[in-house]
Amino acid sequence: MTTVKHVLDSKGRDVYSISPDASVFDALKRMADNNIASLVVLEDGKLVGIITERLYAREIILKGRTSSGTFVREVMSTRVIYARPDQSVQECMAVMTARGVRHLPCWKMSD
Amino acid sequence: MTTVKHVLDSKGRDVYSISPDASVFDALKRMADNNIASLVVLEDGKLVGIITERLYAREIILKGRTSSGTFVREVMSTRVIYARPDQSVQECMAVMTARGVRHLPCWKMSD
Repeated sequence: MTTVKHVLDSKGRDVYSISPDASVFDALKRMADNNIASLVVLEDGKLVGIITERLYAREIILKGRTSSGTFVREVMSTRVIYARPDQSVQECMAVMTARGVRHLPCWKMSD
Repeated sequence: MTTVKHVLDSKGRDVYSISPDASVFDALKRMADNNIASLVVLEDGKLVGIITERLYAREIILKGRTSSGTFVREVMSTRVIYARPDQSVQECMAVMTARGVRHLPCWKMSD
């Protein structure tokens, strides 16, 4: 059984984040620079949301906003669904389908 | 073994397309209206490319363009990788990883 931990062992454990007070343009640039499709949103070290390419595609120009004139906090999703390192990849895929999300940050409880 | 055909039996066979001479804004709107992340680009009934949310996120604002002032043909990918109905889902996932694509239009040769 392949677990989230196995995937992380292969893809690395870098997590890219952004402030809720950054612009969506800056979020987009950070995603492009790192070739990723989402960023976790951290405020005072606490996870408060997630911003994704999907949200950018749906919530900015189509709603009359601009990426440079919109804060991340205005469009981020605050409903963040996690994965645990011991979960199986199959289980994660089922969660993503059931919850309608395309990104699962992996969260490990402190020891 | 789950094949592409099984997936299509479940998710449906609608294929959404757009003209290369449409604006990226119109492409984005069509994707949002149908809750999808890519459109095949058809010219005179012939498949000439694919446009995706990923291309929108990377090729428009970050390169100083606007979605309403850019034609689909300017940013579409002309490297379209297909799946066949008889391919397994596992095989398709391997192709997507190997070729670095996130969308595989399914193409059935005419009888």
